[in-house]
Amino acid sequence: MEEWEILQAWKERVGQELDRVMAFWMEHSHDPEHGGFFTCLGRDGQVYDDLKYVWLQGRQVWMYCRLYRKVKRFRRPELLDSAKAGGDFLLRHARVTPPEKKCAFVLTRDGRPVKVQRTIFSECFYTMAMNELWRVTGDVRYQSEAVEMMEQLVHWVREDPSGLGQLRLPGAPSAEPMAVPMMLLCLVEQLGEADAELAARYAELGDWCAGRILQHVQRDGQAVLENVAEDGRELAGCLGRHQNPGHALEAGWFLLRHAIRKGDPDLRAHVIDKFMLLPFRSGWDPDHEGLFYFQDVDGLCPTQLEWAMKLWWPHSEAMIAFLMGYSESGDPALLRLFCQVAEYTFRQFRDPEYGEWFGYLNREGKVALTIKGGPFKGCFHVPRCLAMCEEMLDALLSRGDPADVPVRLGAE
Amino acid sequence: MEEWEILQAWKERVGQELDRVMAFWMEHSHDPEHGGFFTCLGRDGQVYDDLKYVWLQGRQVWMYCRLYRKVKRFRRPELLDSAKAGGDFLLRHARVTPPEKKCAFVLTRDGRPVKVQRTIFSECFYTMAMNELWRVTGDVRYQSEAVEMMEQLVHWVREDPSGLGQLRLPGAPSAEPMAVPMMLLCLVEQLGEADAELAARYAELGDWCAGRILQHVQRDGQAVLENVAEDGRELAGCLGRHQNPGHALEAGWFLLRHAIRKGDPDLRAHVIDKFMLLPFRSGWDPDHEGLFYFQDVDGLCPTQLEWAMKLWWPHSEAMIAFLMGYSESGDPALLRLFCQVAEYTFRQFRDPEYGEWFGYLNREGKVALTIKGGPFKGCFHVPRCLAMCEEMLDALLSRGDPADVPVRLGAE
Repeated sequence: MEEWEILQAWKERVGQELDRVMAFWMEHSHDPEHGGFFTCLGRDGQVYDDLKYVWLQGRQVWMYCRLYRKVKRFRRPELLDSAKAGGDFLLRHARVTPPEKKCAFVLTRDGRPVKVQRTIFSECFYTMAMNELWRVTGDVRYQSEAVEMMEQLVHWVREDPSGLGQLRLPGAPSAEPMAVPMMLLCLVEQLGEADAELAARYAELGDWCAGRILQHVQRDGQAVLENVAEDGRELAGCLGRHQNPGHALEAGWFLLRHAIRKGDPDLRAHVIDKFMLLPFRSGWDPDHEGLFYFQDVDGLCPTQLEWAMKLWWPHSEAMIAFLMGYSESGDPALLRLFCQVAEYTFRQFRDPEYGEWFGYLNREGKVALTIKGGPFKGCFHVPRCLAMCEEMLDALLSRGDPADVPVRLGAE
Repeated sequence: MEEWEILQAWKERVGQELDRVMAFWMEHSHDPEHGGFFTCLGRDGQVYDDLKYVWLQGRQVWMYCRLYRKVKRFRRPELLDSAKAGGDFLLRHARVTPPEKKCAFVLTRDGRPVKVQRTIFSECFYTMAMNELWRVTGDVRYQSEAVEMMEQLVHWVREDPSGLGQLRLPGAPSAEPMAVPMMLLCLVEQLGEADAELAARYAELGDWCAGRILQHVQRDGQAVLENVAEDGRELAGCLGRHQNPGHALEAGWFLLRHAIRKGDPDLRAHVIDKFMLLPFRSGWDPDHEGLFYFQDVDGLCPTQLEWAMKLWWPHSEAMIAFLMGYSESGDPALLRLFCQVAEYTFRQFRDPEYGEWFGYLNREGKVALTIKGGPFKGCFHVPRCLAMCEEMLDALLSRGDPADVPVRLGAE
């Protein structure tokens, strides 16, 4: 097939799949009584637990608003209403002891806190949700929530983490999980979109985040490690050797967007090499296909029981990464990788019977958990991937005459 | 085969296996520099991380002392010396901020705290280690450590848990994990052995623990649930429906020992029925053999990624439970279950090449993690199982004339 035909075929597949996936969440996840979303959904959408995980509440609000704002066929009042009900649920209940900003990790259906994590991630997804809600509603209350929480996040990460409640023990290494600068970089892009003032305010932060993420390239450029010391040295033991190929690929497209905003072709090439090609080379299972969940950089056996399982989100992040890499470089090898991952993903994770994707396969690709949503899987990675891929495929196809596409991309 | 022959054959197998397993830990796990034990050991015994997990330090000290004290061929100075070095490592380093009693979960090789858990389990294994060290050395310093920590544990569990640092959030259910009364019951037996004063002091506690464990039998006696409300009601959601068949079987033999001490034949029969036969019936994989790690009592899909994996310790606990049930009841069905589990376990978990057992198989029984030790697997469940089975088989075989054994047992 010609590249144009490939792009056209995938545009249709991802567009149709996005509609099916969103229909699943619209039908099964809304809580009409309290607002917010059920995310513990069985294969057929049945609610098997009514706990509300704050990460997933924030992500679903964000996803609904983003689709409402960017994809014409999703500009429907029921999406906006559900997003607002979810956002208002978060405003009422996410914080454990207002006015303090620390948010719960999980709430009861009616919003009472069940667990708190000593990390920044609930607050990050809260911020994404509020900023996107402001963009679609124009209600400044949401935006001031987003900006105030962002200030708190920056304070926790760069100045004083004590408000998170983490104990700093004498034997604990000062490790930086790659997720922390990744999430902040994601928020820098979120808040700075078409907002010159905030873009300027967070420009230095964006560079700092990118620099910190790049420190995770170790071993003379031959590996991305999930945890490094704050000064960029490799950490000892399992913690230091830990790899998460899907996470590296996600960091890849976060960094690629940063390189595009900065107009930095060297960074672009570095990111494609180190955060896309490298994690795929080491993370793709040569025996059964699919990306391993975890690896040990020295090839030792990881201690996580699920290390060899195939999870949905590393694959949706890989699809985004390779298609974005192709869009920006025109390198047909990246399009081939997109197709390889997307074919595997659509074949193994999609559930043609009930919609949405399975989340957890065993190493051989068999469904290990039949749930469609749970404590860590909600309405986020799948539709974000499908919507971003549809948008990128649209842009690639509209760049000009079919025959020109690869040439123009290659010459970019 | 006659029952006598079966018992004789298994006695030889478990005895030889115990020797091989202990040789593995003696050869690979000792830290001559700081005392204590490396437990992160690869398939061939190579140390892949030098962190020291306090649960596993305490358990290995206990195991060495117990074997030294009870099994003649292990009364060797190198076991005692290593146990003392491990115990002294714990005395020096386990507590995070002495004189407070809270212990770390994991320490650096030289004993600096890395992580603390807000639970009682590090302290429980610390207590087991200290009491057993006192029994083999006669050094009262160890015993006063054990008794003082026991008092602290009882205070945390029955009076005031605030010293554990757990946050009590408005939406958190007052759930009791079965592990808490199980561990305390285990300590009641440990401290009370041949010690009339402590046995009397903790007699009421033992009854309380047994009563709390029995509350986990739910659904009109048709299921053991891992978490229940403190007042014995079933909890809502995944937490309430959660089952762990291997843990129920372990509780089974803890309770059976309690019933023996109490001379309570009704409790004995109840325990064999509810904590041995029932968890096996629902927890044994009909397709691939082996005990599931986790289940949902309503047959829904658990949210834990590893739910269908086969772990070593539920199988070693099942071996103990069924052989003890057989020893106490004479019911040949329990001997058949022991043989069924033991055959599967020896076939799937043993590593004839390098010794010790693999810990983590996939649902189909294939080795998923090649490690022999890690953050949760040390020198404990396997040798405890083998030593207890050897002792029980010895006792069964010495009850009298071979031909009498089943009859005498059945008539007991």
